[in-house]
Amino acid sequence: MPDASAPGEQLALPAEEAAHVARVLRLITGDSLRVFNGRGGEWTATITVSTRSAVTVELSAAATPAREPRVRYTVALALLKGDGTDEAIRDAVMMGAALVRPFAAAHGEVSLSAALRGHRLERWRRVAVASAKQCGRAVVPEVDAPVEFGAIAAAAAAELRLLLVEPSASWATVTMAELPAPAAVTLAIGPEGGWAPGEVALAGREGWRLTSLGGRTLRATSAPLAALAACQAVWRDD
Amino acid sequence: MPDASAPGEQLALPAEEAAHVARVLRLITGDSLRVFNGRGGEWTATITVSTRSAVTVELSAAATPAREPRVRYTVALALLKGDGTDEAIRDAVMMGAALVRPFAAAHGEVSLSAALRGHRLERWRRVAVASAKQCGRAVVPEVDAPVEFGAIAAAAAAELRLLLVEPSASWATVTMAELPAPAAVTLAIGPEGGWAPGEVALAGREGWRLTSLGGRTLRATSAPLAALAACQAVWRDD
Repeated sequence: MPDASAPGEQLALPAEEAAHVARVLRLITGDSLRVFNGRGGEWTATITVSTRSAVTVELSAAATPAREPRVRYTVALALLKGDGTDEAIRDAVMMGAALVRPFAAAHGEVSLSAALRGHRLERWRRVAVASAKQCGRAVVPEVDAPVEFGAIAAAAAAELRLLLVEPSASWATVTMAELPAPAAVTLAIGPEGGWAPGEVALAGREGWRLTSLGGRTLRATSAPLAALAACQAVWRDD
Repeated sequence: MPDASAPGEQLALPAEEAAHVARVLRLITGDSLRVFNGRGGEWTATITVSTRSAVTVELSAAATPAREPRVRYTVALALLKGDGTDEAIRDAVMMGAALVRPFAAAHGEVSLSAALRGHRLERWRRVAVASAKQCGRAVVPEVDAPVEFGAIAAAAAAELRLLLVEPSASWATVTMAELPAPAAVTLAIGPEGGWAPGEVALAGREGWRLTSLGGRTLRATSAPLAALAACQAVWRDD
């Protein structure tokens, strides 16, 4: 409901949501539901018209959504095999990410061309919406179309850029607890097969810092959740 | 291989491992594999005898397993439905837990009697072994038989005891970053349905501290991973 903005408004639900409300949830005129606009606004609403093809609601009280983090977190996420990327996006949204940027990594098992096929971006965006609903966020993070790692490495939007490396790696890393809380951070998470040395070198030349989490090898799907939890704990962003 | 202790030893693999090595992995005399004793020792080994029913190996060089955390982490884990408990144990092991204590919670969906049926404890222990192997730990954490929450609340072994509560809860919480690194900590994680008020009150009387992670509602299966990552980041336990 991107156009929801204030109590008292009457709004027609988009066709897909209307079908879900009428045919799956089987809600009828007078029933209540929650409406959110994806930009931080959330309301309770009452159904005023419900047919097989259209549902209209009236917004009532504004609801209190989950608090958003103070730091703006961008998660640059190597494409993972199977449902790995979906799982990682779900967790990143739950942990307060503002933006997810999937990318193809040299040692990854999913190529950029494979990721660009088959409506994956639409699916990732649905995963982000569902996860935001489930964890009580009224802000739905954006999910960008996948790119090559070079485009991630060169991006300079965030004040702090951290590349998460394996604890056994031989490069110099910073401890998260040493870094003061930034206004914005990009966390780059590698694929199952780890970073290629060339990717780490490239990130280094572009000014990224390297960091690692704990002394053990994390599953690639768990790394975004662990990294965001670690950042929020040291930066007291809770 | 609980009896592995030094290079040069000849050891017969236990029957189940021997069958796996010979029939699934199809390794033969002269092939190499890794052997660990579950107490921090890990070796490369060479197969010296391999038949359908028995495999003997000779330990060669000691391998370097993943570093163990400085803090001793006990994860008290509410029983979760479906594969949730397996998933949470897998992640707790990956994040360096020393002990996992499953318990039945008032608002949980799995009762203690259901958890005591059907070889669940054996399965959880296999999950712990598999996860330790995957993340490179040579120490396999123990998994205790499930108990009621009262037995967890009354346990006083750890120096610090933290009950993880929902961010929306109205009780007084401490921020993890305020707590100095302990020698040992028990983290108690509630079920999908959250803690019963009586459980929180009981823990409070027993001297537990309450804490929460981020401003959003975490999936119950993700909470152990997030809590351990947060502790290790603030305590620089990496």
